[in-house]
This record gives sequence, structure tokens and C-alpha cells, in this order.
Amino acid sequence: MSVLKGACILGQSGGPTSVINSSAEGVILTALANENITRVLAANNGVLGILNDDLFDCGKEDINELRLLGGTPASALGSCRYKLKDSDVDDTDYRRILEIFKKYDVRYFFYNGGNDSMDTCNKISKYMQKVGYECRIIGVPKTIDNDLAGTDHCPGFASAAKYIATSVAEVSLDAKCYGDKAPVVIFEIMGRNAGWLTAAASLAGIAGEGPDLIYLPEFPFDMDRFIEDVARVRKENNGCCIVAASEGIMDKDGRFISEYGSDLAKTVDAFGHSQMGGLAGVLAGAVKDRLGCKVRGIELSLLQRAAAHCASGTDVDEAYRAGEAAVLAAVKGETDKMVAFRRAEGRSDYVCECVTVPLSLAANAERKVPAEWMDESRTHMNQKFIDYCLPLIQGPAAVRYENGLPRFARLKRIKPE
Amino acid sequence: MSVLKGACILGQSGGPTSVINSSAEGVILTALANENITRVLAANNGVLGILNDDLFDCGKEDINELRLLGGTPASALGSCRYKLKDSDVDDTDYRRILEIFKKYDVRYFFYNGGNDSMDTCNKISKYMQKVGYECRIIGVPKTIDNDLAGTDHCPGFASAAKYIATSVAEVSLDAKCYGDKAPVVIFEIMGRNAGWLTAAASLAGIAGEGPDLIYLPEFPFDMDRFIEDVARVRKENNGCCIVAASEGIMDKDGRFISEYGSDLAKTVDAFGHSQMGGLAGVLAGAVKDRLGCKVRGIELSLLQRAAAHCASGTDVDEAYRAGEAAVLAAVKGETDKMVAFRRAEGRSDYVCECVTVPLSLAANAERKVPAEWMDESRTHMNQKFIDYCLPLIQGPAAVRYENGLPRFARLKRIKPE
Repeated sequence: MSVLKGACILGQSGGPTSVINSSAEGVILTALANENITRVLAANNGVLGILNDDLFDCGKEDINELRLLGGTPASALGSCRYKLKDSDVDDTDYRRILEIFKKYDVRYFFYNGGNDSMDTCNKISKYMQKVGYECRIIGVPKTIDNDLAGTDHCPGFASAAKYIATSVAEVSLDAKCYGDKAPVVIFEIMGRNAGWLTAAASLAGIAGEGPDLIYLPEFPFDMDRFIEDVARVRKENNGCCIVAASEGIMDKDGRFISEYGSDLAKTVDAFGHSQMGGLAGVLAGAVKDRLGCKVRGIELSLLQRAAAHCASGTDVDEAYRAGEAAVLAAVKGETDKMVAFRRAEGRSDYVCECVTVPLSLAANAERKVPAEWMDESRTHMNQKFIDYCLPLIQGPAAVRYENGLPRFARLKRIKPE
Repeated sequence: MSVLKGACILGQSGGPTSVINSSAEGVILTALANENITRVLAANNGVLGILNDDLFDCGKEDINELRLLGGTPASALGSCRYKLKDSDVDDTDYRRILEIFKKYDVRYFFYNGGNDSMDTCNKISKYMQKVGYECRIIGVPKTIDNDLAGTDHCPGFASAAKYIATSVAEVSLDAKCYGDKAPVVIFEIMGRNAGWLTAAASLAGIAGEGPDLIYLPEFPFDMDRFIEDVARVRKENNGCCIVAASEGIMDKDGRFISEYGSDLAKTVDAFGHSQMGGLAGVLAGAVKDRLGCKVRGIELSLLQRAAAHCASGTDVDEAYRAGEAAVLAAVKGETDKMVAFRRAEGRSDYVCECVTVPLSLAANAERKVPAEWMDESRTHMNQKFIDYCLPLIQGPAAVRYENGLPRFARLKRIKPE
């Protein structure tokens, strides 16, 4: 263990989750308590905050407010979607980051995000190695999409999963209470390329009210078969049919179903992703036209990633531990890594430890739902998925209430001197 | 107090709430414990259950399951939307109801619902009086819309209000975390004629993240002014603007704004299917087209009336007490009434008691949001509304969890012998 003294910067990036601030709490409180970390800085809006020299000093925050971070959704530090160019092509941003690191004597950098953020973190790490600036760089995973490679699961996924399963169970009960006047209900759930969250809707079955049909982006979607599936379920089920579909489902030709008739936004973000939206409306319209029945499309939209009030206690705790583990690993001498979760195998209880994996592993891969966790029809999850997912959603949320409403952390954001 | 012995029937009707079953629990447990009520029957799917002789015996249910009703959303007894004809025009249904009442010696009838259900209850009550069949009939209020006359507020409203305020606060935090890339977010909230729930979105301000603009159906909506409002807020607010709008907002000519978008709402896709979309889609489309900014429409749909996991403890408790009060009033000799809430005036703390009001009062009126509880611009609620609403959303939900998910009541529904 080689001692390295200096400041740290923490940044958050990409779409937030309801527990990303629990990881921030883990990083900040652990770093503030560490004698080698001389100052704990946070970047406003991720890497943009570094580029713009827009930082704040976490040491000047009220500790009681920092302790509320675990019950505060969204990115408390501010997020961004900013793609760094390859440093071989254009190293302007990298030189600026190095300048800021030197200005504040930054020797620890923690970046909290999903695939694209790990790509950013990896690029900065490789650049600092190349120019020989000693800085320990650790990625802290975060994504409701649960698609980071190298980890059993990602902080943020379980809380979104719990909210989705709870909401699907509640709304299914509602839909069924009219007897034979029950509608078809179609949930549109986040997940562009990986169907983890849509799969999690199946957990509602534990509460007795699971979806009848599930469609993941991992498997091609066929509109005619979908209509047949819905018609069959309605016949068996007193007219009711509950559907959970990933926003990113595509037909066999690779065309997004959400784009079938939509003249809604097709803007492309900085990472080249087309902006999603409208799937629930497309599927509801098809059911209404072809089956003539009552149908409701429900897009869970931002609700599913912001619902800290329905977070998983396990997720809140693990997100904190991931942040803590990043600091402890860095102080011990690790760098160029991402914190990951390793689940103990061959046990009946759930045990999960934090490990580290190479940043480049997480930055360049996307983990999909295994085909063998679905049945042959590709419309139901099987017990393997339930066994994987159920331990993750246990335990109550960490929200503190004041006046009947969540009391979010309030940060002062004082600039470093 | 005249003693009347006989069976009771409880029915639920109309759109459910997340606490309607708490009222059922109140009626059932109080009736089961009362010596004058010989048998406690429930109607499957409201008045349809009576017409179809489709009842079940609550005395045969497991008491532990009945005690889970307070944390179970939707209508546990089953609901219906069935309008009784005027008995002077066609008394077929009424004669059938009388027949069933006689068959089971029903002397107490409790009907749990909103405006239309109170109309049904009132008509049955008046018919039984006309034909001289002794039966004590009490309506138990329920509606997330909060628009029943004669009561300070309605069971069900506060829980939906709490969910909406919580969700708006959470999503607002999420929307704001991208700095100047923040989107406009438009919430579509239930309320055809009365804007109580949309007004409740303003409670999110207590958590620091209230909507910037609120539009209620009580006041005419002007699209040009709306676009100006959004543009102004975006300028003041780093690009972000959070809007809460009632599904039922209309222009000055009485046309629903949700119908403006036949183009957008009924886009026909490549397969000839119509694409469904409501008010949120219309407003989001208008903002996108005219301001060219990023915008998200979020329809809270069935989520807002089914979210028992985020219910108000005060609401759960009051819904139970409304059911209990209905039975106690009937046993004491009252009939042709609805239970109502009366809030103690001139106190700093919140005290609310159950009273009864004539059924006909509730059946024929609709209570709107008072104009003096908004500011002049008609886009913000003022302190009078906050003072009215905030006490109602206090206290945690009554959901019991099992395996990390809500454990809903499971009824056996055994037919009466």
C-alpha cells in the first residue's frame, strides 16, 4: 500500500437513479474520514463541472444534510451526458481536466455512472496513465438498466425494479376489479437494449398480480403474435390482460416498435442513441384497433428511476457500500477499476460483497438478460430470474419524511477556496 | 334508538382508490361485531352483485385477511359502473334488489363510492322508503376526485394527493439535475371537472420541488398563454419547467384540450393502427413544436389511484372510520344518509369527526376547487389550499410487506348459504 495524499473529486453522470446519491454519500463520508484525502470536492454536472472549474467543497456541507443523500433521488451533484472525444483525436478536454486536477491537487477521482460514464472514466484513467499524472481513478457503478458487465447487478436497478413490480401489482388489481369490463393495460418500461427492468415486472406475481405477457428487447417482437397473445389471455382471463414491454423492443428487421407510427421526437443524443418514447401508445393503438377492447397504455417514464419513496433498502445499502468501497480501494492503491458486486454462490441466503474489476471491462460491454431465464414463448420470466432478482428488492426505503413528504438533502454547494 | 335486526350488504362502486378497502374493513369488522347485524354480506361488483345474486359471506373470511384490506388498493369486493334508471320510468332493477334484500333479510345497506354511487344509493334508499321496506341505507364516501358535496374531503383523495406530490417532487429533482439541459415535464393528472388532485401537486413545493405551473379544469385554458407561461418559466429557471395539468382542462369554448390533438393523439402508424395519447401528449407536442425544447409528458394514469404503497396514514385511518361510522349510525337508527367529514374550525391542529348528511345532498352536487385558493394568474395554489390539504397527507401507508412486495388481502368469497 503506497500512501498518496491529495484531494478527491466525485462526479455523477448519465441518467440518475433513486439511490445514486447513496453512493455519493458513501464516497463523501468515507473520503471525509480518510486522512490521505485532503479535500473532498464534487463536480457540478459530472465531467462538465471539471471542464468548467465548477466544483464545490463537500467538507463545507452540513453532515446531517449529507446523511439525507441516501433518501434523495436524482443526481444531487448534478449530472451530464457529455461524451469525451478519443484523446488521440482531440486531447483538449483531457488537458483541461489535467489542469484542474493539478490546480486542486486532485489525486483521487471517483465517477458514478453507467456504461457511458464508465467509458468517460476509463478514458480519463488511461490519459492520466499516459501523461504520468498520479491519480487513482475508480468508477462507481450506477444504472437502473442493470446492463454493466463485470458485476452481478448494478446499484439503482433494484429500486426501480421494486417500484415497477409494486406499481404493476397495484394497477393490475385496479384493472381487474371491474369483472368482465376489465381493460388491457400495457406498461412501457425503460430499457433500450437490455430488458432487466421489464423482466422485473414479473416480480409482481409474488404479490399475486403479475403481468400476463412480457416483451424484452433481447428477442424480436412480432406485432401479429402480440395481438394473438393478448387475445388468448383475454379469453382465459375475463377480458383482462396485463402487458409489460421494454421501450426498446424491435421487430425482426431491427426497427423499433415505438417508431412504427410515431412522429414524436427522434432526436439523437450525444451518444448516438435515438430518444425513446411512445411505445405504450403504439401497442395500445394496435390492441384497440384489432381487438376493439378497452385498453390503457402506461409509460412509467421518469417515475421509475426517481421513486426513492419506494426504493429497496438492500439497494440503498449496497449503493452506499459501492461508494465506500471505491474510496477504500483507491486509498489502498487501486486505480483504473470499477467497483462491482459479487454474489456468494451456492448459498440459500443472499450475500454480496464489493470487489473491483478493470474499468475497460465495464466500459465496453453490455449485459443482457440471459435467454435461459425466460420460457420458450419469450413472454414469461422463469424461476431463475426470480431467484436472481427477489433478494435485491428487500427492505424498506431510506426516505425521511417531513410534513408527510420526503425531506431531500439540501446542499450548500460552496466553491472551493 | 329502535332496534332493527337483520343482515347487511356492503357494495363498492365506481373508480377505486388506494384506501377504499380500508372503508370496507371498517364496515365489515364493525358489522361483524354488532349484535343486531345477523350476517355481513358483500356484493361482487357493486349493485350488479345484488342484481345477479352474486354475494359472499364476510363472516366466512379469515379475520387476518380482512385486516389486510387497509393496505390493499383497488376494489377488493369488485366494482362496477352501472346506472340505475329512474324507478318511476323502469322499476325492474329496484324490484329485483328488493327481492334479494328480502331473500337474505337485508336490513342494512352500505354503498361505498363517489358521486354516481351516491346517486345509486340515494335511488335505492328512496325506493325502499316508497315501498315501505324497512332498511337502513348509508353511503360511505370515496373518490380521489374529492368532489363530493357535504364533506370537508373524501377518503381516497389524500392518498392520491400524497402520491402525486411525492412523484412530482421526485421527478422534478430528476429533471433539474442536467443543468441547462433540463426538459419541460408535463404531468397529466386525473380530474375531469374538479382540479383537486392537480392542485395537490403543489404540495411538492413543501419538499422544495413544486410545479411551476398548474392548470385546473375550473378555469378556461388558453394554449397561447400556456406556451408563453412555459417560455417565461424556462427563461427564469435554467430551461426547466414543471407543469401539472388536469385531464379535464378546456378552452373558453368548452372544448377539451385533450381533444385538440386528434392529429397527435390519433396518429396512424405504418400498420394503420391509431396511436393513443391524451392531454400530456397534446401539451408536450405543442411545447415541442412552438418552443423547440426537450419535453416529457407523464400521464399518472391508474398509478395515482392505486398507489397504496404511498398512501396517507391519515387517509387510511379516516377511510376506516368512515366505514365504521356508517355502521354505527345505521344501527342507531339513521338511514338515507352519507357519512361525511367535518373538520374542527379555529384550531391550529387538525381534528376531523365523522358526521352524516342527507344522501340527496351528496348525490346531486359536485364540489370544485374554490377560486380564492389560487392566485390571480390561475397557475399557482396559495396558502389556503396548502393549509387545507397538508394535514390530510400525514402519516405512513398501512401496507404490509412480504418478500419485499405488498401483501394484499386474499378473500375466499364464499357464497352465502
